[in-house]
Amino acid sequence: MNVWWLSEASHSGLTHVLLSAAALVMATSLISRQLTLSLQNNFRLSAAGSRYISKAAAKAQLDYDYDGPLMKTTVPGPRSQELMKQLGEVQNVGAVNFFCNYDDSRGNYLVDVDGNRMLDLYTQISSIPIGYNHPALLKLMANPNNLSTFVNRPALGILPPENFPDKITESLISVAPSGMTRVQTMACGSCSNENAFKSMFIWYRNKERGHNSPSEEDLSTCMINQAPGCPDLSILSFMGGFHGRTMGCLATTHSKIIHKLDVPSFDWPIAPFPRLQYPLEEFTRENAQEEARCLEEVEDLIVKWRQKGRPVAGIVIEPIQAEGGDNHASPDFFRKLRGIARKHGCAFHADEVQTGGGSTGKFWAHEHWGMEDPADIVSFSKKLLSGGYFYRDELQADKPYRIFNTWMGDPSKNLFLAEVLNVIRRENLLEEVARSGKALLDGLYDLQAQFPGLLSRARGQGTFCAVDVCDAATRDRILLQTRDKGVILGGCGESSIRFRPALIFRDYHVHLFLNIFSDVLAHNK
Amino acid sequence: MNVWWLSEASHSGLTHVLLSAAALVMATSLISRQLTLSLQNNFRLSAAGSRYISKAAAKAQLDYDYDGPLMKTTVPGPRSQELMKQLGEVQNVGAVNFFCNYDDSRGNYLVDVDGNRMLDLYTQISSIPIGYNHPALLKLMANPNNLSTFVNRPALGILPPENFPDKITESLISVAPSGMTRVQTMACGSCSNENAFKSMFIWYRNKERGHNSPSEEDLSTCMINQAPGCPDLSILSFMGGFHGRTMGCLATTHSKIIHKLDVPSFDWPIAPFPRLQYPLEEFTRENAQEEARCLEEVEDLIVKWRQKGRPVAGIVIEPIQAEGGDNHASPDFFRKLRGIARKHGCAFHADEVQTGGGSTGKFWAHEHWGMEDPADIVSFSKKLLSGGYFYRDELQADKPYRIFNTWMGDPSKNLFLAEVLNVIRRENLLEEVARSGKALLDGLYDLQAQFPGLLSRARGQGTFCAVDVCDAATRDRILLQTRDKGVILGGCGESSIRFRPALIFRDYHVHLFLNIFSDVLAHNK
Repeated sequence: MNVWWLSEASHSGLTHVLLSAAALVMATSLISRQLTLSLQNNFRLSAAGSRYISKAAAKAQLDYDYDGPLMKTTVPGPRSQELMKQLGEVQNVGAVNFFCNYDDSRGNYLVDVDGNRMLDLYTQISSIPIGYNHPALLKLMANPNNLSTFVNRPALGILPPENFPDKITESLISVAPSGMTRVQTMACGSCSNENAFKSMFIWYRNKERGHNSPSEEDLSTCMINQAPGCPDLSILSFMGGFHGRTMGCLATTHSKIIHKLDVPSFDWPIAPFPRLQYPLEEFTRENAQEEARCLEEVEDLIVKWRQKGRPVAGIVIEPIQAEGGDNHASPDFFRKLRGIARKHGCAFHADEVQTGGGSTGKFWAHEHWGMEDPADIVSFSKKLLSGGYFYRDELQADKPYRIFNTWMGDPSKNLFLAEVLNVIRRENLLEEVARSGKALLDGLYDLQAQFPGLLSRARGQGTFCAVDVCDAATRDRILLQTRDKGVILGGCGESSIRFRPALIFRDYHVHLFLNIFSDVLAHNK
Repeated sequence: MNVWWLSEASHSGLTHVLLSAAALVMATSLISRQLTLSLQNNFRLSAAGSRYISKAAAKAQLDYDYDGPLMKTTVPGPRSQELMKQLGEVQNVGAVNFFCNYDDSRGNYLVDVDGNRMLDLYTQISSIPIGYNHPALLKLMANPNNLSTFVNRPALGILPPENFPDKITESLISVAPSGMTRVQTMACGSCSNENAFKSMFIWYRNKERGHNSPSEEDLSTCMINQAPGCPDLSILSFMGGFHGRTMGCLATTHSKIIHKLDVPSFDWPIAPFPRLQYPLEEFTRENAQEEARCLEEVEDLIVKWRQKGRPVAGIVIEPIQAEGGDNHASPDFFRKLRGIARKHGCAFHADEVQTGGGSTGKFWAHEHWGMEDPADIVSFSKKLLSGGYFYRDELQADKPYRIFNTWMGDPSKNLFLAEVLNVIRRENLLEEVARSGKALLDGLYDLQAQFPGLLSRARGQGTFCAVDVCDAATRDRILLQTRDKGVILGGCGESSIRFRPALIFRDYHVHLFLNIFSDVLAHNK
């Protein structure tokens, strides 16, 4: 039997394993669902101390956070199963883990509809920047001046609201990558990358022409999908990369079969991504060799595709391959890759949809490369709450409507983003991430030393960490058992576990997690 | 000089024509910006009666609407120009018309930052269903139970909120097209169509296989973008069609050069869309012939592409080609096209991104075809506030994660949609649209009789109307002059004007518009 799609289930926490014996339903949550009504209160909860953390740690915790997980059923519990059946009537629910009570969720804790409260180290596929129901965001909703931003979604590209230039300067431009002062907002990660690719194609063709006046042949052929109007250009991507699932993006995604199968694609070059040995400090020579091999292959592919008549207009790469298995490469690799792009006249696109927003300990993962001119395009989404991309001046499309759609983003998400950035700055969250990330990685090193048959290749930057499990089935089992003990993790790659906590994840959350995780590992030894 | 992109400017209302002499800035608007604070009031404004409409009409008007346009400057006014300069520092503003004051906008009226109040017949490229700041939507924002839906955006595909099955049943499923009980939400129109295409490809390949177990060759080739894993399948589209701007969608878009130029594409078949003569009733024989010619070509292309080794997995079409020039076809054409799709084993996808949501006088434009089984897939966005597609059972992907992304829509938009649907039902807005649409089309017939050198081919369904202008330059000039007199219109096709008012557009708004438009036309005679 063909089981090519099964490893995917780990991603969803094996929701297929519906529990046939109804789990115990405990008393309903003591926490009122009306969190929203307690806006005026200070959010400190007087829940009983958890067994996992010390009194001191509990004392230090965020005042809008819970003090530990609280499990009442296995997950998904009976109410989740009921809702899954209901939703299954109208759509595919094969990927649904469980149903959530977002009113009661707060800080680092996600509460489900069966009253289970879980420490969340996956944060909606890495898309919740400062935890659930952050008071600063709730407060923003209570401001009547913001109402019309939610109610009247504009076509931003033609009719922006008065405060849009200020808001975008206050939010996105304040975190613009080095060398970039321009940004285009979009609604999601895929649209961001699709439009970034288009910007690179337009830029490349104008560069080829030496001017920006298309020929009559360009004009007549583009309407019927033919070259030269729709040119045979390509984007070079990396095996293991993930850049989205719309058809342009998908042609550069090579992480899992399930994403790609049966969808027509483009004949574009795919380079190997370095397969490094960890910890990086111990394998510098071997890793440098591996990176050199990959870079050589990149240059070969660029030349080969030019000869094939499909020149490489741009190179797209994640600073850390996330969905593909948390694969790292050194700053040196990225600096050299940037150089190769420049040498061959290709645009260089750093896809920071998952790495951007602070979880590597810097706002952008590419900051770890230490370059003043890290890329031509940097795309983002997830923790930045809507999508878009920064670009160097010369990458701006030469005419209006070449990069365009109805909504071009969503100002109501920008409103939240500006506040998220305020919180990050006010609470020094990047420093906190560096600190808790170190504790997390040290803990993973300890655990892999303690359970060498189970864990290997612990790696990470900030809290953007991962560890490999001996095989996919064990990884999937461990994810489920950890969840039933109150911690949500994500899978990635073939048999890796990825850690994607919010930026408000602190030392004591690390220890809380490590205690639970270590129990589960001992159980699986 | 090459001016292939210039006609686009009409779309933006020629914002390039920046006024060098600063226009008169009149006293600031009497209407407070704090609309939101007046939630408790009944929104009735006591503004002075407009010269354009009778006292009786003014009396009948919606109590959250203004009673007429009020112009203080030409558009864009000085404040808009200032903001354009500011935003131009960080992004391409070539398409920006002017900046808006969404707080003060209400009902059918869009207010700009210079205090100009315009009757809006374009509604953010047809995406505002029930006007600006509708009291029902503002009320929804004031409900504290809804707060967490805005603040905590979930990864809907894995961790939906408790009320998601109910909300989706109450909203989208309540307007499911005939023959469909399933819906997949997405964030925007392009993502909706991209994923609809993917669903058709997956369905088609499984049909070809006779089962849903891919071969080893499928599995190994798909990761490197090669057939058979990434098969050479195609989607048949129509010349003049518009289905979005991401690379899969763009391969089926053939409305304007500006959208397509310099972006690599797929070799997919493109059929002619009927070019009908209007009014339809007067040219039934000629139009039937034209439609037969197009249908014949569709069948030829399906056969030809099958022979080429790129079988047509699906046919995508708009019930009315919108962006491409408001091109209509008869119910008979669509019924026959549906039959051709079935005969050749292709899926049939009705793209209702612009036509859906009520403006044709029925909730879906395809309802005018009078079929119980109108399509396999119906995609939507715009007036439905986020995106998605309905599909027949057999089009559901066979496994989780084949149709997936991080957000898969946005529950906060669903909340609004449920309320929009309530308003449509409570206020019988579809009947209102049919009524005001008839008044609008009759008015356009009158005007084209009165100005035969200027206008021709008036056409429409509900308020989804259009009229052709003698040439693009005249059309663009008329759009600007009409705007300066307080009415916002949109362009489409080569030299058409499209009308896309909200569903709360009434008879007296029609007359108000016709008076202004007729003045402008007289001026251009």
